[in-house]
Amino acid sequence: MTGTAPRRRGRPSRTQSADAPATRDRILAAAREEFSERGYDKTSVRGIAKTAGVDSALVHHYFGTKEQVFEAAVEVAFAPALKVRDTVLEGPLDEVGERMTRVIFGLWENPVTRTPLLAIVRSAVNNETAAAVFRRLVAAQLMRRIAGRLDVPDAELRTELAAAQLVGVAMMRYVIKIEPVASADPEQIIARIAPVVQGHLTGP
Amino acid sequence: MTGTAPRRRGRPSRTQSADAPATRDRILAAAREEFSERGYDKTSVRGIAKTAGVDSALVHHYFGTKEQVFEAAVEVAFAPALKVRDTVLEGPLDEVGERMTRVIFGLWENPVTRTPLLAIVRSAVNNETAAAVFRRLVAAQLMRRIAGRLDVPDAELRTELAAAQLVGVAMMRYVIKIEPVASADPEQIIARIAPVVQGHLTGP
Repeated sequence: MTGTAPRRRGRPSRTQSADAPATRDRILAAAREEFSERGYDKTSVRGIAKTAGVDSALVHHYFGTKEQVFEAAVEVAFAPALKVRDTVLEGPLDEVGERMTRVIFGLWENPVTRTPLLAIVRSAVNNETAAAVFRRLVAAQLMRRIAGRLDVPDAELRTELAAAQLVGVAMMRYVIKIEPVASADPEQIIARIAPVVQGHLTGP
Repeated sequence: MTGTAPRRRGRPSRTQSADAPATRDRILAAAREEFSERGYDKTSVRGIAKTAGVDSALVHHYFGTKEQVFEAAVEVAFAPALKVRDTVLEGPLDEVGERMTRVIFGLWENPVTRTPLLAIVRSAVNNETAAAVFRRLVAAQLMRRIAGRLDVPDAELRTELAAAQLVGVAMMRYVIKIEPVASADPEQIIARIAPVVQGHLTGP
């Protein structure tokens, strides 16, 4: 009715079968973006498909349910953390606090890794399914592995309280953005936080 | 069509003008409930009005916009924290870490005060308006007042890092519920956290 012909011809479907790994990656990237911006509740498989330029059925084909897409996106987001986990675990135990603090800060300071972390935090805080994914991945794969290296009886609780200090700083600096912590020099914060993390992990 | 006459006769409006303070309190209680359960984004003035059994116009009359209802609900939620703030500030400075830790834990352990705290955290993490309210109330009224008592140059940053340890534990214990911290004995956690809070506030 308004002049030029409509350009809609159904959803785009370029390279769907020709280049499966690229399509899968594009869906994952779209999922990360959607979950980061909207959180778990407001993200739909349909929205992810639209952002990725594929049909919803293809999202289900590669990943299954929305929860499973979320889990895959979180796994990708945590891949750098899991890689550096070994860095955290290697080296002298009396410097593990500083290594852990630097690694986590590095992930938050880098916009590429910050976006998916924000998605995870926002989703886990508001949705039990997302919280369960967080517990499964972060608690089991990251924290319990660090706890396994500590030679103390309450290693898991210690690791969690150390992680809590880092989670709390991340919340206040990157999520809620309270000053002065939001704009403070990272080294100033690391200098104060690393000994606390070390104390939780190996202190008396 | 299905037998008995419908009971809907418009929204209930009992005691609206007769008992203004009670109505105002009922709206606030409804707001706390709605914000806790749904978070800021998904809560509407209409929903609050419905839960309170009043007309939406009355919510606007008493509080103004949704942001202002939220701010009022947060203020009520933080009233116990602001009351105990003076408890935290009174007494010897070398025990301020333990007082602050016990006060914050007390608020989280009590279901009556936990519900609004959950509402604040969930909302502030996902919504910039709610985050601004959090910054205004919590940062300005709670943390800066504690910082004002510390005789150190970086008092505000120290107070925020102390608060970050408490916020992080609350996130992992009450919001995301990671084990073993979620089920640990409060005294066991306080014993480990209080010295950290003290160290942030008055340590070297």
